[in-house]
Amino acid sequence: MYKNVVRALMVGRFQPFHNGHLSLVQQIFEECDELIIAIGSAQFNYIYKDPFTAGERILMIHASLVDSGIDLSKCYIIPVVNDENNARWFAHLKSMVPHFNVLYSGNEFVMTITSESTIKQPNFVNKNEYNGTNIRKLMVTSRNWKKLVPNAVFLIIEKINGVKRVRTLFESDSDPQRW
Amino acid sequence: MYKNVVRALMVGRFQPFHNGHLSLVQQIFEECDELIIAIGSAQFNYIYKDPFTAGERILMIHASLVDSGIDLSKCYIIPVVNDENNARWFAHLKSMVPHFNVLYSGNEFVMTITSESTIKQPNFVNKNEYNGTNIRKLMVTSRNWKKLVPNAVFLIIEKINGVKRVRTLFESDSDPQRW
Amino acid sequence: MYKNVVRALMVGRFQPFHNGHLSLVQQIFEECDELIIAIGSAQFNYIYKDPFTAGERILMIHASLVDSGIDLSKCYIIPVVNDENNARWFAHLKSMVPHFNVLYSGNEFVMTITSESTIKQPNFVNKNEYNGTNIRKLMVTSRNWKKLVPNAVFLIIEKINGVKRVRTLFESDSDPQRW
Amino acid sequence: MYKNVVRALMVGRFQPFHNGHLSLVQQIFEECDELIIAIGSAQFNYIYKDPFTAGERILMIHASLVDSGIDLSKCYIIPVVNDENNARWFAHLKSMVPHFNVLYSGNEFVMTITSESTIKQPNFVNKNEYNGTNIRKLMVTSRNWKKLVPNAVFLIIEKINGVKRVRTLFESDSDPQRW
Amino acid sequence: MYKNVVRALMVGRFQPFHNGHLSLVQQIFEECDELIIAIGSAQFNYIYKDPFTAGERILMIHASLVDSGIDLSKCYIIPVVNDENNARWFAHLKSMVPHFNVLYSGNEFVMTITSESTIKQPNFVNKNEYNGTNIRKLMVTSRNWKKLVPNAVFLIIEKINGVKRVRTLFESDSDPQRW
Amino acid sequence: MYKNVVRALMVGRFQPFHNGHLSLVQQIFEECDELIIAIGSAQFNYIYKDPFTAGERILMIHASLVDSGIDLSKCYIIPVVNDENNARWFAHLKSMVPHFNVLYSGNEFVMTITSESTIKQPNFVNKNEYNGTNIRKLMVTSRNWKKLVPNAVFLIIEKINGVKRVRTLFESDSDPQRW
Repeated sequence: MYKNVVRALMVGRFQPFHNGHLSLVQQIFEECDELIIAIGSAQFNYIYKDPFTAGERILMIHASLVDSGIDLSKCYIIPVVNDENNARWFAHLKSMVPHFNVLYSGNEFVMTITSESTIKQPNFVNKNEYNGTNIRKLMVTSRNWKKLVPNAVFLIIEKINGVKRVRTLFESDSDPQRW
Repeated sequence: MYKNVVRALMVGRFQPFHNGHLSLVQQIFEECDELIIAIGSAQFNYIYKDPFTAGERILMIHASLVDSGIDLSKCYIIPVVNDENNARWFAHLKSMVPHFNVLYSGNEFVMTITSESTIKQPNFVNKNEYNGTNIRKLMVTSRNWKKLVPNAVFLIIEKINGVKRVRTLFESDSDPQRW
Repeated sequence: MYKNVVRALMVGRFQPFHNGHLSLVQQIFEECDELIIAIGSAQFNYIYKDPFTAGERILMIHASLVDSGIDLSKCYIIPVVNDENNARWFAHLKSMVPHFNVLYSGNEFVMTITSESTIKQPNFVNKNEYNGTNIRKLMVTSRNWKKLVPNAVFLIIEKINGVKRVRTLFESDSDPQRW
Repeated sequence: MYKNVVRALMVGRFQPFHNGHLSLVQQIFEECDELIIAIGSAQFNYIYKDPFTAGERILMIHASLVDSGIDLSKCYIIPVVNDENNARWFAHLKSMVPHFNVLYSGNEFVMTITSESTIKQPNFVNKNEYNGTNIRKLMVTSRNWKKLVPNAVFLIIEKINGVKRVRTLFESDSDPQRW
Repeated sequence: MYKNVVRALMVGRFQPFHNGHLSLVQQIFEECDELIIAIGSAQFNYIYKDPFTAGERILMIHASLVDSGIDLSKCYIIPVVNDENNARWFAHLKSMVPHFNVLYSGNEFVMTITSESTIKQPNFVNKNEYNGTNIRKLMVTSRNWKKLVPNAVFLIIEKINGVKRVRTLFESDSDPQRW
Repeated sequence: MYKNVVRALMVGRFQPFHNGHLSLVQQIFEECDELIIAIGSAQFNYIYKDPFTAGERILMIHASLVDSGIDLSKCYIIPVVNDENNARWFAHLKSMVPHFNVLYSGNEFVMTITSESTIKQPNFVNKNEYNGTNIRKLMVTSRNWKKLVPNAVFLIIEKINGVKRVRTLFESDSDPQRW
C-alpha cells in the first residue's frame, strides 16, 4: 500500500488448492506485482463440500507457492469467513485484506457489486478436471487425483490423512454435528 | 506440516504492529523454523482501541517483516475473529492456522487451555513504551510515536491517514455506529 | 398505539412485491385502520430465491402503495431479519414492529405460535400466478411478468436491472460467495 | 429510485425521538424531496441506554411526523441492526434502505467511510437539551422531559409506561438477562 | 468430577427420543456410573426435521428415564446449540457439559476429532425402525409410531399435539419464517 | 408436562452456585413439585465475572442438590445462552426449558416481559454474603469463601483449581482473547 504496486486479488474456497489455481496465480504474476489469495468459507471444514480447515488450506497454498518458486514476500494468503448478506460481502472482504487494484473473478456478481477495482477475467485452464468438486469425487472413488494438485498439496493431504476424511464425509453424507 | 519444521505461533491484536512485536518475531526465528502471526479481534476496526482493519494490520506486519529481511516463505500472517466462548477459543484458533509446535504467550490462560503445544514465555523488550495503548495515546497527543514502530508501519499509517483516524476515534469517544 | 386504531400485520419476503400482495393490502384496509408490512428474510439478497435487498423491497412496496392511492400515514414497511429459533420468532417479530391487533397469515404455525392476536386468513387472489417463485421463473425464461406486479415495481426492477440479476443468479446456480 | 428525487438519509438511535430530531427532519425537507430515517441499534431494548424496542421507536417517529404535517409518502422509517465490523457498516446500511443521494451526519467516520454520497452537516438545535441521554436522565430524576419531545412521543411513552421502564433500568443498573 | 466416577456422554438430536435411545442409555449404565445426554441442534424447532423444542426434548428424555427406573441423580440432560465450525465443535461441546471419560459415538468424525476420551461404539438395536426420520414419517402417514417410543414420550407428544405439528411441517414443506 | 405438576423456574448465572441459591431451591420445593434451574450466560467462561464453564456450573448444581438430599428426578438443570434482544429473551428461554407454571424472580423486567406465568419473589437469605460477586472477591483476596457455598461446590472448585483461575482472571483484568 505504501509503495506503488499493482496488487491483485483472487478468491476461492480451495478445497483443495489445485493446478488450475496455481496456474492462475502464475498468470496473475505476469500482470501484477503482488497477489492476495482470499480463502472463502473459512469457517467451514469437515463437511464433504468443505473438508479442509482454513489452516490446512493456508498451508497447502503457501507450500505450493514456495515449491513453485514464487516470491512469498509478494503474496498474502488470507482466510475470510462468509457473510450472509451478499450486498455487504464485498465491504466485508475489503476489511479483511490489504488494499488491491485488480480483482480476478469470473463471478458476474462480484463484477456487479464492485465498482472501484479493475476486474479481470481469470483464465482457468482445463476447468473440468482442475476443479475441487471433481478432485473430491476422484478421492472418493479411489481414482488418480494426485496429478491435478501441486505436489505440496498431495503431501499435505497424505500427512493429514485427507483422502480418508473426504471419503468418510461422503459416505456418512453428514457432518459431525448431525446425529 | 509436510516437512519436519518447528513452527511457532504468536498472537496479538497489533493495533498497531510495533518494535516490541518485531523484536519478538526476531527472537522466535532464533529458536524456530517458521512463524505464524495470528491477528486477533480481526473483525474490529474504526474503534479507538482497535483503529485498523485486519487488512491494514496484515499489510503493516507483512511490510515490516520484508523490510527487516525476514524470509516471508517462513511466515504466515493470519487474521482470526474472536470467539465469545473462551473455553472454545483455542480450538477455534487451531482451525484457522497451520499446525504449530510452539506457542509464545505470556497469557496465563492460554497456558491453561492448551495442553498439546510447548509454551514459551515471550520476552517483550521495553513493554511500557512498545505497547499499542501507549502508541495510540502518543498519536492522540501529537507526540513522537514514530520511533516505536517499524518504518513500514509508520509509512502505512501515514498513507491511510491513520493518526487522524485514531484522534477522531478518541475524541468522539464512540464508534461510527453509535449516534 | 396511543390512539385506538385497529392495526394489522402482514408478513412476506416480497421477492418481488406483486399484485397478489397489493390486493391483500387493499383487502386489509377495508377491515383495519393501519397496516404493518413486515419484510422477512431481510438480510438475504443476490440469491436466486432472494434477489432483491431489503432496501429495494421497501422501495417497491412504498412506491406501489403511493401509486395505488393508499395513505402512507397508515402504513409501516419494516424489514425483519430471520431468527433461526422458530419458537422465538414471534417475539423477535414483535420487538421490531409497532403493536398490532390483527395478524393476516395463512401459515399454520404462525397461528400456533401466536395466541394474543386475532388471526385472519388472507385471501390471496390467483395464487399460482401472483407468486414470487413464478414471477422469478418468468423473468428467467423471458416471459411476461410485468402484468403480475404493480407498475412501480416494474419500473424499479427495470431501473436496477433486476431481470438480468435474477437470470444471472439462476444460471450461476450460486451466490456471490460460493467459488 | 425510479423517479428523479433527491433522497436524504439520517441515522440515529432515537431513544427517544426528540425535538432536535424533528427539527432536523424539517430542515432536511427544505433541502430534499424524500427522507429515510434509519433507526440504529435496532436489536437493543430494555437496557438503560436503549430502553425502547425498534417497533416502539418506529411508532414514535411515525406519529411525530404525522402530527407535524409531514407527508409520510416521502418518508421511510427503517430499523437497522448493528454490525460489529465498522468498515463494513456502511455497506450493511445501504443494503437495508432505499438508494439515497444525500447523507446528513456529523459523525466524522461516516464521512470517511462513505465516498459516494453528498454529506451534509446536520444542524442540531440546542444539542445539550435535545439529547437522548439528557432526556433519559430527566425521566429518572422525575424532571420535565415532556417539552423536549414531540407530543406524540410523550403520549406513546405514557401509554407503554416508559418512564417507569427507564427508571427501573437505571436503578437495577442491569438488563433482564444479568442475574 | 470430584468423585472418581466413570461418566459417559451420548449425543443426539432426539427428534423424538425413542426406544433405540433408551436402550443405549440402559446399555451405557451397565458399563458406566453416570451419563450425560447432550441434545444437539438445540436451537432448532418447528422444522419438519427438528419439530420439537429443546425444552420439549428435555422433558421427553427426563420422563422416559424416570419411568424406566433410572436414577436421575446419575444423569445430566443438556441442550447444546450447533457450531458452524466443525473443527471447533468438540471444544464447544466440552464447555457445555461436565467432564466425561467415555464417549459413545458411531460418528467417525467424532472419533477423529477427539483424542482424549475413550470412545465406544454404541450398539443401536433395530436401527431402521428406532430412528427419528422413520418415526416422523410414520406420524405423517398416520401409522403406528407409538410402540417405537417410550410411553412418556408418547404422552408428551399427545399433550403438545405433536403429531399435528409434524404433519403440518411436512405438508407446508417450510418453516414458519418462509412466506 | 404430561402430569399435572407445578413446575417452577429459577434463573441465575451461578458463578458459583452458593448457599443462597441452595436455600432458594429448598424454599421452592416447599411450594412446588418440580424445579427448572436455568443457567444464564451459558456461553461465557474464563472471564473474571464468569469464570466457570456451563458444564462446570451444571456439575456444581447437580452435586449440591444430590448432597442436599433433593430428588433429582424433580429437577432440570439447563444452560441457556444469552440473547442480545431483551424483548425476545423470554421466548428464547421458554424454547430451551420444559413448560413451567411459576417463575421465581426479583428482576422487575422479567415481571414486565412475562404475562403468562405466576411470578413469585424469591426470598434470598443474607444477600450481601451469599452473592457471586462477593465470593469471587473473597477468592481473590484469599479469604474464607468456603462456608458460603455447598461443600460439593467447594470440592469441585478445588478439583478444577478454580481459585487460581479466578485470581488470574482478576489480576490480568482481561480474558484470554485480549492481547
